[in-house]
Amino acid sequence: MNKRYHLSEITQHLISVAIGMTKADLVIQNGTLINVCTGELLPHTDVAITHGRIALVGNASHTIGKQTTVIDATHLYIAPGFIDGHLHVESSMITVKEYAKAVLPHGTTTIVMDPHEIANILGTKGVDLMIQEGKDLPLNVYATMPSCVPATADFETTGATLSVNDIAHGLENPRIIGLGEMMNYPGVLNGDANVHDILKATLMQNKVITGHYPPIDNGGAGLNAYIASGACCCHETTRMEDALAKMRLGMNVQMREGSAWCDLKELAKAITHHPIDSRFASLVSDDLHPDTLMTHGHMDYIIRRAIEEGIPPVTAFQMATLNAAQCFKLDQDLGSVTPGKYADIVLLSHLENVQVVQTIVNGTCIAEEGKLCYTLPNTTYPEFAKQTMAISKTFIPDDFKIEVPSHYSSPTTKIHIISIIEKIATTHKLIEELPVVGGELKSNLEKDLLKLAVIDRHSGNATMGKGFVQGFKLKSGAVASTVAHDAHNLSVLGTNDEDMALAANTLASCGGGQVVVQNGKILALNPLPIAGLMSEDPIEEVAKRVSEIDQAWKILGCPIASPFMTMALLSLAVIPELRLTNKGLIDTITFKPINLFI
Amino acid sequence: MNKRYHLSEITQHLISVAIGMTKADLVIQNGTLINVCTGELLPHTDVAITHGRIALVGNASHTIGKQTTVIDATHLYIAPGFIDGHLHVESSMITVKEYAKAVLPHGTTTIVMDPHEIANILGTKGVDLMIQEGKDLPLNVYATMPSCVPATADFETTGATLSVNDIAHGLENPRIIGLGEMMNYPGVLNGDANVHDILKATLMQNKVITGHYPPIDNGGAGLNAYIASGACCCHETTRMEDALAKMRLGMNVQMREGSAWCDLKELAKAITHHPIDSRFASLVSDDLHPDTLMTHGHMDYIIRRAIEEGIPPVTAFQMATLNAAQCFKLDQDLGSVTPGKYADIVLLSHLENVQVVQTIVNGTCIAEEGKLCYTLPNTTYPEFAKQTMAISKTFIPDDFKIEVPSHYSSPTTKIHIISIIEKIATTHKLIEELPVVGGELKSNLEKDLLKLAVIDRHSGNATMGKGFVQGFKLKSGAVASTVAHDAHNLSVLGTNDEDMALAANTLASCGGGQVVVQNGKILALNPLPIAGLMSEDPIEEVAKRVSEIDQAWKILGCPIASPFMTMALLSLAVIPELRLTNKGLIDTITFKPINLFI
Repeated sequence: MNKRYHLSEITQHLISVAIGMTKADLVIQNGTLINVCTGELLPHTDVAITHGRIALVGNASHTIGKQTTVIDATHLYIAPGFIDGHLHVESSMITVKEYAKAVLPHGTTTIVMDPHEIANILGTKGVDLMIQEGKDLPLNVYATMPSCVPATADFETTGATLSVNDIAHGLENPRIIGLGEMMNYPGVLNGDANVHDILKATLMQNKVITGHYPPIDNGGAGLNAYIASGACCCHETTRMEDALAKMRLGMNVQMREGSAWCDLKELAKAITHHPIDSRFASLVSDDLHPDTLMTHGHMDYIIRRAIEEGIPPVTAFQMATLNAAQCFKLDQDLGSVTPGKYADIVLLSHLENVQVVQTIVNGTCIAEEGKLCYTLPNTTYPEFAKQTMAISKTFIPDDFKIEVPSHYSSPTTKIHIISIIEKIATTHKLIEELPVVGGELKSNLEKDLLKLAVIDRHSGNATMGKGFVQGFKLKSGAVASTVAHDAHNLSVLGTNDEDMALAANTLASCGGGQVVVQNGKILALNPLPIAGLMSEDPIEEVAKRVSEIDQAWKILGCPIASPFMTMALLSLAVIPELRLTNKGLIDTITFKPINLFI
Repeated sequence: MNKRYHLSEITQHLISVAIGMTKADLVIQNGTLINVCTGELLPHTDVAITHGRIALVGNASHTIGKQTTVIDATHLYIAPGFIDGHLHVESSMITVKEYAKAVLPHGTTTIVMDPHEIANILGTKGVDLMIQEGKDLPLNVYATMPSCVPATADFETTGATLSVNDIAHGLENPRIIGLGEMMNYPGVLNGDANVHDILKATLMQNKVITGHYPPIDNGGAGLNAYIASGACCCHETTRMEDALAKMRLGMNVQMREGSAWCDLKELAKAITHHPIDSRFASLVSDDLHPDTLMTHGHMDYIIRRAIEEGIPPVTAFQMATLNAAQCFKLDQDLGSVTPGKYADIVLLSHLENVQVVQTIVNGTCIAEEGKLCYTLPNTTYPEFAKQTMAISKTFIPDDFKIEVPSHYSSPTTKIHIISIIEKIATTHKLIEELPVVGGELKSNLEKDLLKLAVIDRHSGNATMGKGFVQGFKLKSGAVASTVAHDAHNLSVLGTNDEDMALAANTLASCGGGQVVVQNGKILALNPLPIAGLMSEDPIEEVAKRVSEIDQAWKILGCPIASPFMTMALLSLAVIPELRLTNKGLIDTITFKPINLFI
């Protein structure tokens, strides 16, 4: 990738090209500019580019010389490169490089990633690795500093902790433009000293605090308190009323359209049903499966969705460009096609369909007609990042045995179980009764009660919490995953102990990932050796394996969509109502451990 | 003034009040919020305030305690404090304190001043003095660092020079939020190394470059080059087409409505005649006479003018608040009534008439019903700032004699003269013929040709340039002024040498100012001892003296409005066509000195 020049380095080159004294490197000629500054479509517009930045927008004929590359944009639209203001690359299970490869042909030229997942495994080293990987890519990779690592240290064994000092130090990195989603909104509202120290450290460095405020609140006390603490944006909004309330309080509402969480249908109404200034609205993806990236696209798809929901096209483009840039104080460098900005530009054949035909980054054509036309640098993660399965033992079926304490003498016993709700992150805490067989409890297919084990993969002790889950409807086999928010311990779900042991051993030996086994055989395996979360393989291969995994779940009898995603949240001990960690069941209403047996 | 807290210092106090745990210092109750974020009017809105910042906007009843001051805003509008994004306090001939006194009752709570005039006399010391004065006032006084001091060093003796290092050092001051208007746009466009070094120094500190780009350009090469160099705003726009062009290129158009330069009538059309997003439009005053401040007001008046020109009221308020705050990267602290921001709030009884009834700054009521209800700290300028008339000699009438060189033997001689155009800054370079009387040329009332002398008041040498001006139509007496852009040398205009000497001597001995004399008597004197530009007296007295001066001009026979303002530009050797400095006539088309005699 050519050097990205700071504007201060090249003002003289830019003026020289603008006035025609020297010639442009690249001129885009005669397109219809989607002017996100004034919200207009301006036909017959040229853009002249030198040193990777825009020197002139208007009539650029005097900037064309013999060496100038000219792109004829007749019948094309010219838009600023798209910005995704909040996402987790790890959710796509691929490297930053593969993420760039996937999104660049779709017009995305800037991402603000929150490397929260890898931070939970590898701490600041993990954050640094992903930022380092992003530096050499023809994608503007900015990051926010994960704010809540671990999510909860009390109830589980975690891989890493980010202290206030770690966060303050991280924020000094110019690539880290803000604080990652402050999920601990109860801590913000309670005045928790550590949480507010983190906020202060961010504000003192004049960086943005990105929010995470899901409560339904209608602009009440909690939301006000949260915003008063400095949070400037939020991607956790699901109701139109809350979106309006946030925008009215000066918070940028990052309307989310991810693989699983699709909020646009509802949130678009804040704009389509109200004659408001929409400068505090933007578009983000948050979490995308590799297959969503492969089939739907990225910000082009989300802009298209916004337009489908009735948002005026130019407004939708503003939401994916200027509005996001202003939110992150990046608007001096990007977010509009105006002089001085990075020449990160998208050419489209269709406005409302958002058909990207070319993506230009830093003045270089990077993708054309859906294909990269630029070789991305190879990136390799170091060995320490691939050795995060601190489990030396080999599991045997008996490890998964759930023995009934001797003082429970009845033929059945009542237990607390986790009941899942498809596509919803919360669970129900229910009570069920299981027969005691030979002093133990087994998975019970009739009642759809499956054994779940969560195994510490960080400390080397491999402590295991055990419980029962209802809702997955497996009829045979077992599944396991090291993608298990936020501590990402090894989760194993199964109909029998033998398959559970095989699933656990398979992931422990391959560095982590996802596996489905049946009757002693591996049906599908998706190795994710980087921190047990990501693969270095091409996105196409990872997407194929994810699809094989989904198929294998179906073979085991699971009828629900994206079951691994639901399973991945079963150990997240900060959302209601009942969770299982390596330390046992946690009641996440009372925030107290509870016993399996009643 | 209570301390202005950085947001990082008080997040815990803010959340505590927002959730009602502790009570607010002040609650504004049941007003109609002018929501500049969404562009809506929201009735029945409360605002809760603590530690000078806004804790909550919405229903604040739970934040009211026994100690809470409550303002009933029923039937009132609640707006963010107004921002003037570009002005020169020196143009009002008063101190920053007196400026604050004048504008606070009119709802202005933030100014971005460019102390360019004092910088031309006292250099960085002058800038520091004005910033220091602003620090203790209940007005947010931000400054830009003057970029072009002197305007031209080649053609005149100047008082001070600001080097790149001076500017870079000044920009480190957190009160200095950007670079002052970069008037040397030819230097920008020519790639002048010193000019670009100044731009680079600003960009490297991540501060804004404020612009000054008057050419009629329609978005052409020059404007593009200027914006590509980093200028983010411009107050020198007089045509709707140029306003549109600038906004389309991402430049904030600071629509100016000053005492003399009134651009709103024309520029408002950019918004009223085009369905554009107006976030890149704001309102500024630039230069205001003390009597304009006394009679019309300040930003309230300019917002009213914008509304009179057809701009929707809420849009006009956005232009004087949020749009300006975003332009200057101040929007985390001010520009909207939203949680976390400074409690700089204006209450109005009338939306479209912009009737300010109360101004609240940092949570304290500062002005009510047009009167300050807060005692401003006394400010005194040091002696060195009042001793800027480096003229030791006493002028005699012969000093103003214009002798015809001996080789001009004819009874008349042709000379270059400056012809003024009322209310327009440019002059015409004309040729006139005058009789030679006793080897010299005298002021000629029939032809309306008056002697003009410009005397170096900086170096101690008191060198004098002499010429003739047409257009002031004086019939007797003389006038003198030390307000003479940008070097602010001592300018003397007169019908006879005796009165010219008296006028010059009067200002030399009183520290500078403005004077009108007739037949050996002083008709009116406005002493401006601070740098020869400003007075420490109350604005009421200065305004009265300015009015006496205006009257005295009329007594001498001058029919034009604000003649001192026109006179003040006669030595500004950077605007067309002909100027006089202490070194003689300067042709400002060719940028070369020229001879008086042809």
